[in-house]
Amino acid sequence: MSASSEFDQLRVVLVATRNALNIGAAARAMSNFGFFHLGVVNPYEPSFREARSAVGAAELLARAQQFKTVAEAVADCTLVVGTTAVGTRERRHPIKRLEVAARLIHRRLPSSRVALLFGSEKFGLSNEDLSHCNWLLRIPTREQHRSMNLGQAVAVCLYELARSSKPVAATAPETHHPATAGDVDRVAALLLDALRASGSLKTRSATHTEEKLRRLMRRHNLSAEDAKFWLGMFRQIVWTLRAKDATP
Amino acid sequence: MSASSEFDQLRVVLVATRNALNIGAAARAMSNFGFFHLGVVNPYEPSFREARSAVGAAELLARAQQFKTVAEAVADCTLVVGTTAVGTRERRHPIKRLEVAARLIHRRLPSSRVALLFGSEKFGLSNEDLSHCNWLLRIPTREQHRSMNLGQAVAVCLYELARSSKPVAATAPETHHPATAGDVDRVAALLLDALRASGSLKTRSATHTEEKLRRLMRRHNLSAEDAKFWLGMFRQIVWTLRAKDATP
Repeated sequence: MSASSEFDQLRVVLVATRNALNIGAAARAMSNFGFFHLGVVNPYEPSFREARSAVGAAELLARAQQFKTVAEAVADCTLVVGTTAVGTRERRHPIKRLEVAARLIHRRLPSSRVALLFGSEKFGLSNEDLSHCNWLLRIPTREQHRSMNLGQAVAVCLYELARSSKPVAATAPETHHPATAGDVDRVAALLLDALRASGSLKTRSATHTEEKLRRLMRRHNLSAEDAKFWLGMFRQIVWTLRAKDATP
Repeated sequence: MSASSEFDQLRVVLVATRNALNIGAAARAMSNFGFFHLGVVNPYEPSFREARSAVGAAELLARAQQFKTVAEAVADCTLVVGTTAVGTRERRHPIKRLEVAARLIHRRLPSSRVALLFGSEKFGLSNEDLSHCNWLLRIPTREQHRSMNLGQAVAVCLYELARSSKPVAATAPETHHPATAGDVDRVAALLLDALRASGSLKTRSATHTEEKLRRLMRRHNLSAEDAKFWLGMFRQIVWTLRAKDATP
């Protein structure tokens, strides 16, 4: 597969971006480096498609897909990578340096879709957003000044992806058939149903548990076959729990 | 010489920049990657030091040196590198790809000052500006869309300089605390109990399922914390399934 058709498998997803100029700048950098699929989740300025900063990338911006939730934006991807400015200790996700991350992304692109998520300028990705990510990527900025401008962060990530796309051809393609994010969500949802049916899900902590579960399932790097196996298993458990509830 | 004192020898020079926000964005990227010497030649907006885009880099911007000419800005440097979006044919200067350029710059930094010039947003570096350069560097953007946003171009160049300064210093140490094999086995065993209690484990295929489950759990690369979470969850499910069985 050529680099350009591999690049076609990457979706850059901007989540809850506040300043439309940053969306335009991201679009410009994408076009500079040859990535054309932009997804936008809940942008703060609905008129973002007119951002003048998308110099030379107006068409790319016009074709951007708009989504209501991160789940929708990544449903057809088998690898979801979040970006973070934060150090290693603060998060429960594995964090990889940009160079390492780029290698892993390249390994996945020939066989399936990958999403690269960027959070809002002010807050980055929320815990809910992060729960959709398999792992996180960090640009190696100085510890004393980690947080980058959004458009610049997008440019640096895509530069690294473009730069490292060539010699990596040597790496063996993955033989693993990864599950899509949609499949993983379904497994997590069923497991949640099981917890609910077993009465162990407190309403107060439901969102927290849901996020934790999703994070866990993502990290587990399920194959398509694994997902099928888990789905079958949990369906049976949920079914039994419910059937027992129903009997007087 | 340490990387940081080498970085002290680099001067980023912005020539005839039109938009002060781009100067601020450049300052922010410099601070992100550990370069602190900014030179500004004939900025279009004299009030550039107040640019709000210099998030976290206000001090760097306040200390920027202002010059009337490129000649003054590069006078104490032994290597002057211009940046260009243009291809090879149009210029009479040698043009090097960013990666190669970064290596050459690194070779010079331990012994003397290097200037990295960025031209105006609209016109790039003029022929007069270029006449001060030893050679040019080009960020490998697509031929059909070469011209980058100024702040993004600065960020990408400095990222590459920072990245290539360490000979791929070993990756960050692992922060993952893996679960013990015993923990993983306990999770698999509980899940098997849940399947049994839900009536979905056929005796004939029990060994097969058990192996499959254990293999699956191993592959999931559980952390100690994950294992604890799974154990708690499955314990509850099994307990409920059994309790329901026991009620008449």
